[in-house]
Amino acid sequence: MSLKNARELGSFFNPESIAVIGVSRESMSFGGSSFLHHWLKAGYSGRLYPINPKATEVLGLKAYPSLRALPEVPDLVMVAVRADLVPAALTECADVGARFIHVLTAGFSEIGTPEGRELEARLAAIAKERNLRIIGPNCMGPYSPASHLTAWGGIPGLDGRLGIISQSGGVTQRFTEYISSLGVGVSKAASIGNAAVLDSPDFLEFMAGDSDVDLIAVYLESIRDGRRFFDLARRVTPRKPIILLKGGESRRGAATVSSHTGRMAGDPVIWKSVFEQTGIVPVTNLQEWVDACLAFSLLPKTRGKGVFIVGGGGGNSVIFSDACIRAGLEVPTLTDRSMGRIRPFVPVAGSIAGNPLDFWGTYLVNDFLFEALNAAYEDDSIHMVVVDRLIPRIAFHSPDLTSDSFAEIVEFIQSRRQAKPTVFTIDYDGGDSDLIRQGSDLRARFCRAGIPAYPSFERAIGALARFYRYCRRFGHAAGR
Amino acid sequence: MSLKNARELGSFFNPESIAVIGVSRESMSFGGSSFLHHWLKAGYSGRLYPINPKATEVLGLKAYPSLRALPEVPDLVMVAVRADLVPAALTECADVGARFIHVLTAGFSEIGTPEGRELEARLAAIAKERNLRIIGPNCMGPYSPASHLTAWGGIPGLDGRLGIISQSGGVTQRFTEYISSLGVGVSKAASIGNAAVLDSPDFLEFMAGDSDVDLIAVYLESIRDGRRFFDLARRVTPRKPIILLKGGESRRGAATVSSHTGRMAGDPVIWKSVFEQTGIVPVTNLQEWVDACLAFSLLPKTRGKGVFIVGGGGGNSVIFSDACIRAGLEVPTLTDRSMGRIRPFVPVAGSIAGNPLDFWGTYLVNDFLFEALNAAYEDDSIHMVVVDRLIPRIAFHSPDLTSDSFAEIVEFIQSRRQAKPTVFTIDYDGGDSDLIRQGSDLRARFCRAGIPAYPSFERAIGALARFYRYCRRFGHAAGR
Repeated sequence: MSLKNARELGSFFNPESIAVIGVSRESMSFGGSSFLHHWLKAGYSGRLYPINPKATEVLGLKAYPSLRALPEVPDLVMVAVRADLVPAALTECADVGARFIHVLTAGFSEIGTPEGRELEARLAAIAKERNLRIIGPNCMGPYSPASHLTAWGGIPGLDGRLGIISQSGGVTQRFTEYISSLGVGVSKAASIGNAAVLDSPDFLEFMAGDSDVDLIAVYLESIRDGRRFFDLARRVTPRKPIILLKGGESRRGAATVSSHTGRMAGDPVIWKSVFEQTGIVPVTNLQEWVDACLAFSLLPKTRGKGVFIVGGGGGNSVIFSDACIRAGLEVPTLTDRSMGRIRPFVPVAGSIAGNPLDFWGTYLVNDFLFEALNAAYEDDSIHMVVVDRLIPRIAFHSPDLTSDSFAEIVEFIQSRRQAKPTVFTIDYDGGDSDLIRQGSDLRARFCRAGIPAYPSFERAIGALARFYRYCRRFGHAAGR
Repeated sequence: MSLKNARELGSFFNPESIAVIGVSRESMSFGGSSFLHHWLKAGYSGRLYPINPKATEVLGLKAYPSLRALPEVPDLVMVAVRADLVPAALTECADVGARFIHVLTAGFSEIGTPEGRELEARLAAIAKERNLRIIGPNCMGPYSPASHLTAWGGIPGLDGRLGIISQSGGVTQRFTEYISSLGVGVSKAASIGNAAVLDSPDFLEFMAGDSDVDLIAVYLESIRDGRRFFDLARRVTPRKPIILLKGGESRRGAATVSSHTGRMAGDPVIWKSVFEQTGIVPVTNLQEWVDACLAFSLLPKTRGKGVFIVGGGGGNSVIFSDACIRAGLEVPTLTDRSMGRIRPFVPVAGSIAGNPLDFWGTYLVNDFLFEALNAAYEDDSIHMVVVDRLIPRIAFHSPDLTSDSFAEIVEFIQSRRQAKPTVFTIDYDGGDSDLIRQGSDLRARFCRAGIPAYPSFERAIGALARFYRYCRRFGHAAGR
């Protein structure tokens, strides 16, 4: 695909008109009608055309019997008819000159039958012969909050600078709403399913050239042209990090890939080597994916792997230190100068002055926290900071902990423009609904204020370790 | 310590009277008074004696000038005076014949000074000379919901069959309230801090012989008599699983250990070998600790490592399969008989009939879920089941998902007495407060009904992998 062709894919994300072939008058279950319903709800401002030969109106929109009957050539056509009717729908698209098509329908190569494979081959052949650009089949298609094109995932969605390319509709939906709910917005997401025509390299090339995208998150099960993906990734990663969740690394996972998107998952050894040679950042599950995207989206670059740990208590200071080392980071001894600043306000008994810094005062009095952070920001051995933030709990014998010092902390960190990457951890897991409400609320507020906050120390460190390795490799370009 | 001496430690957890040396009349900050306050609040029904030479009453309780002035010898004395006053307090205990003592006070060997070490040596010498049983110093002491002895951790606490031994007060508090909030109760917890007199092997021996304890969770930073711990653990693990969070495995973590509890962490290579030779179950953080305790507390034993995965969607089916394999478990192909039962109700397109089973119907219609579970329970290749339970979300285009089928699911699994270990996963992480509320509530309800539920698939699989390895080794004794 030429560069011109890659740019052209932008049409999927900013259509001025959309026709939907395959809408039901009654059912609002998953399909053409539910997409129309969600586009309307999300405030999509372009023209929507339901195509149904038996209806005059669907969801208050004028319905048309066919594409031919439309007053214009739609920028995007969504095809949601039964699998065996898809080829005819595609031919109709080509006949009227509609070239950008999303095939929602499932039932192609992923069902594992000769018929399914044959149907997918026909789809690809029509696309080639008639020069159609097709996303799918078996996928959720394009998503773009800036265009109010948000029928799935975060609805109405949050505009931002993240690009997503994914072979799973369900995973992309969840990922999109998950990261949006933490304040990191999405520029464009492409759920590409079986990727019979347009494949991940096509969208990677498009997003590489898209000035609205800074960071690319990819969920991949398989790939047709591995060499092209590899060459592209090597060019893209130094400028825009690619965070990749690869499904099907195990033989069993690979077997499931063939039932899901009808393709081959590829050798995990090859993929490992691809990660090493391209600088793609690998993750293994949804949580790691979101955690890394938070760090890469919000943090300034780090110049090293020295972590300063604040708070958490004595036992956690030990456990957290272990976690840093296990993840390949360091917990350096503070300089004498830093110790000289910290020691005066940390009691000798029941606390630990140093790194980790275990001192209840950092929860209770912001000035203690700020003095510790200032010392760390000026300490050359420290490159990143993790602050453990407990939630007020009566079981900790500290009724004073109820004051909300959030705004002041955010202001302090923002005023220093995150001098060094600084993240928070807030542990609220379990079955205590009050703790969960307070903790998750605090976490979301930190994230939305541009400060990554994680529900466990290990998850914070996992994200920081990935971020550090990326910065070490592409230092000049990394970070916000 | 003899077996008789070990049994004697039960006195710490069921005292009929407690004296507290070191209570303030005014301050309710952490210390003797806040412990009294919490015992009163928790409904402790024994006799409480504040010792304060200047007060006549503390928190509505009659105060006494000294232990000598008490009307009886208290079963337990808590010492919360300044570190340098501790030796005199211990001597006073010995003089009146009080032998079970919890030293809350910090400022001993953990502060790293000759004075601190010397003070701790004096404490140990007095204990030896006067035959005192001391928990501490620098710790939260005993905790026992059945005795309403819950001044920290879950308050009022949930009685149960878990025993906890820990060198970190903060970690034990959080762990105790965390696991209690999920419906798994604690029989006894001992926060032992610097463990200058009574050490982890003493409490391990005690809990090994305690018929109220089925499962032992240990947080250890260091150990004096490693051989004794090893020999005990080897005897205990076949009957009662020991789940151990070892702090200080890295050199940096070990350095922090010495600031926290004033001791040496021991060689991680040795610890690894201890785990292998004893069958102790190692975990590396608080979440893994709780996750494993849920599985070990609630599940019947597993006879193999074959996992049946239900729900989650296509992409998650791939990612979850990978996670099982990575954790050392298997995702077996179902037998023809099972497939014959499942295939009729799973649509060919958009779903996957098999293992994983990806079918929306299992969320929507309980009968589909039950039929799949029944097939798995009768399939010899399947040993454990993980059901992914999505929360109703409009973004998934399924307005029907709002019905609450929880009660019926619980009844189904309970009526089969968990024929094979069956756990649920509910992903609600992020910043969507409504999703968090619904998801965490559902999770807690499952756990409290005796069905382990985890906030991510990886965490469920981590717990099941540990459980499987334990059952493989000690098959005859494992499980509920």
